[in-house]
Amino acid sequence: MNAPGPALPPDEVFDWLDADAATRTEAGLTHRPRPRGSAPAPGEIDLTGDDYLGLARDKRVAGATAAASLKWGAGAAGTRLLGGSLELHAELEHELARFLGAPAAAVFPSAYTANLAAVTALSGAESAIVSDKYVNPALVDGCRLARGDVAAVAHLDPDAVAHALSTRRKSRALVVSESVFAVDGDAAELGGLVDTCRSHGAALLVDDAHGFGVLGDGGRGAVHDAGLSSAPDVVTTLTLAGALGVQGGAVLGPRRAIRQITDVARTYGHDAAPAPGTASAALAALTALREEPDLPGTAVERAMSLATGLRTAGLRTSLPAAAIVSLPAPSAPAAASWVDACAEHGVHVSRVTPPVAPDGVTRLRLTARAGLSESDVDTAVKVIAETAPRS
Amino acid sequence: MNAPGPALPPDEVFDWLDADAATRTEAGLTHRPRPRGSAPAPGEIDLTGDDYLGLARDKRVAGATAAASLKWGAGAAGTRLLGGSLELHAELEHELARFLGAPAAAVFPSAYTANLAAVTALSGAESAIVSDKYVNPALVDGCRLARGDVAAVAHLDPDAVAHALSTRRKSRALVVSESVFAVDGDAAELGGLVDTCRSHGAALLVDDAHGFGVLGDGGRGAVHDAGLSSAPDVVTTLTLAGALGVQGGAVLGPRRAIRQITDVARTYGHDAAPAPGTASAALAALTALREEPDLPGTAVERAMSLATGLRTAGLRTSLPAAAIVSLPAPSAPAAASWVDACAEHGVHVSRVTPPVAPDGVTRLRLTARAGLSESDVDTAVKVIAETAPRS
Ligand SMILES: Cc1ncc(COP(=O)(O)O)c(C=O)c1O
Ligand SMILES: Cc1ncc(COP(=O)(O)O)c(C=O)c1O
Repeated sequence: MNAPGPALPPDEVFDWLDADAATRTEAGLTHRPRPRGSAPAPGEIDLTGDDYLGLARDKRVAGATAAASLKWGAGAAGTRLLGGSLELHAELEHELARFLGAPAAAVFPSAYTANLAAVTALSGAESAIVSDKYVNPALVDGCRLARGDVAAVAHLDPDAVAHALSTRRKSRALVVSESVFAVDGDAAELGGLVDTCRSHGAALLVDDAHGFGVLGDGGRGAVHDAGLSSAPDVVTTLTLAGALGVQGGAVLGPRRAIRQITDVARTYGHDAAPAPGTASAALAALTALREEPDLPGTAVERAMSLATGLRTAGLRTSLPAAAIVSLPAPSAPAAASWVDACAEHGVHVSRVTPPVAPDGVTRLRLTARAGLSESDVDTAVKVIAETAPRS
Repeated sequence: MNAPGPALPPDEVFDWLDADAATRTEAGLTHRPRPRGSAPAPGEIDLTGDDYLGLARDKRVAGATAAASLKWGAGAAGTRLLGGSLELHAELEHELARFLGAPAAAVFPSAYTANLAAVTALSGAESAIVSDKYVNPALVDGCRLARGDVAAVAHLDPDAVAHALSTRRKSRALVVSESVFAVDGDAAELGGLVDTCRSHGAALLVDDAHGFGVLGDGGRGAVHDAGLSSAPDVVTTLTLAGALGVQGGAVLGPRRAIRQITDVARTYGHDAAPAPGTASAALAALTALREEPDLPGTAVERAMSLATGLRTAGLRTSLPAAAIVSLPAPSAPAAASWVDACAEHGVHVSRVTPPVAPDGVTRLRLTARAGLSESDVDTAVKVIAETAPRS
């Protein structure tokens, strides 16, 4: 008797998905983002995405994509280990390492896969992983794919990290955190965190996706700012799709850590290598960042104006550590209406819902851009405040 | 007493990586691919990568990348759910679905992340997953991230699938396979597999990365060829970095399956959306495929000539189901020397080592291209045979 697996008509096999969808609809957890066109309409204010410096549409950066595609082709035509490693990748790895003062780097098609690679390759069956419980989905998935013990500890709590490290059952340990957290834009105190790691013989992996290009000297990021980018026990991941405005990810750190990743990480060896156009665009974006070292600070200032404006208007928001501002909403459906109402007034914001909103509270997520004028900020504050749900 | 976690000097924290690296070096499992330049040297024969149709360097495709980057920017500037959804993505999803006759599609930055999304979103705690044990790392990782029971069953063995389905403890089931297997180029018999699924109430997920653009009518792939691309119980994943020569991945299937993926899959919502240049290049590659419906057949013919030539020269290889030819090597180091010796004679081939070579046997992996001449094939056969390790 095959109780669990009787024949079903083929068109009933996925019936359970409709029930799942109905539950999501009721909870306001369906997502149907309206696709954008090629250029923002005049007068619209875009506070979505992670293009903090406006480099995604920068002519130098887009021009590099165009030139490299024509010269190298549209794709890398293989994975890094099977025919797809290009001199452009090596050049980008070299330049990223040089910019950040790190011994070595490996680039990936996304920071998602860079994070999977770093967490899995730098841990193992004999490792404990201690992760801030609010880290992003890529790090969470990396921890789940790793073969060691995983402890997810209280957010931004060095004592919780120390406790997990000192009670671990494995000899090796890897502590995992974001520098600037993706959803709320709050930041870890990396100096304290590395001290905790060091007193417990643990390595530290920092996802600097939202610090890189925004914080520190010329946008060198939070790890560089903490003086840790050349540390022998610290590994950094970052996205090329944030402040650089392109696509891709990277891992930076000691040579032996990068060698381990390129030898064993599955998302390094068996995922198509970054397209020539994106690798070249990332190089151009690094050059732009060197040429305009004040851009990052401007993005941070705009975020601060936005947050203080929203506070003055009576909204609850914490002061941003970088360029992300977060506003709690009473519910997921209320947040969806809020987003729509803002859009009707030409101000585009995003909504982050559970389970990615880490504590179950839906937020609006606003990202400041270096290119916003003070009057854009004023308009945005006004629209967001006037459309806020009354709770 | 903190036995497991004493303080260590920071520069000793990663000492274990050196021991790991030494073990890999001894086993011949280190990987240092020499990066390629922007164009192949004249007279070189490239049998690496997955650019079966030569579209990666096609002017129409590369030109589309260039034009779209200049119009839309270098990056999508956000994840699909947070500001990065573009009309270009919607257009690519529409065209892929139309080309393959599928109800709906979702595109991703890579097939790696498309596979993670499809496996996790279409299973769950109440699902059994039955996977061919030779599937690629992306599907393996997808199975490991999914929350249900996972059974990895014998390669290309429908009875093993049936047995696992009929003895499962979960009510729902998802069967996972490749159409053409990435390493050896052998193929699943999809008609038989779907019958097995249907007699046990299971859905079928097929990774058609190496069938799409190569097999079936005009390169519509193995799922289309089996008449399953519009089936209500079948979901297909594919890469845009293979026959299309670009970068990215897609999931195609019933509307409700795609809706589930776009609502809940973490690699859909929280991974930077494909860059405009790659989305546009994939559209141009689809057009090229429509314009040259015989290209795929030519690639398959070249693979067959390559395999029969190698057999005539006394080498062990199975006849290819698509455009991948695989040659077992006596050991990983012997395969590395073989690859190097071929390269010295201007023939570029890849090496696949365990654990990705599924049964622990290192292979050379050769991919045929539509653009190879018969004389290229002869030269390649001669070089590969003459440099073969004597075992
Ligand atoms: C069968 C198969 N599926 C998926 C992938 C991953 O595809 P992508 O390179 O687009 O991530 C690969 C790797 O090349 C593969 O061989
Ligand atoms: C902190 C953090 N790390 C990594 C990622 C993934 O980066 P990518 O979009 O390059 O995959 C994200 C998602 O945007 C993120 O917020």
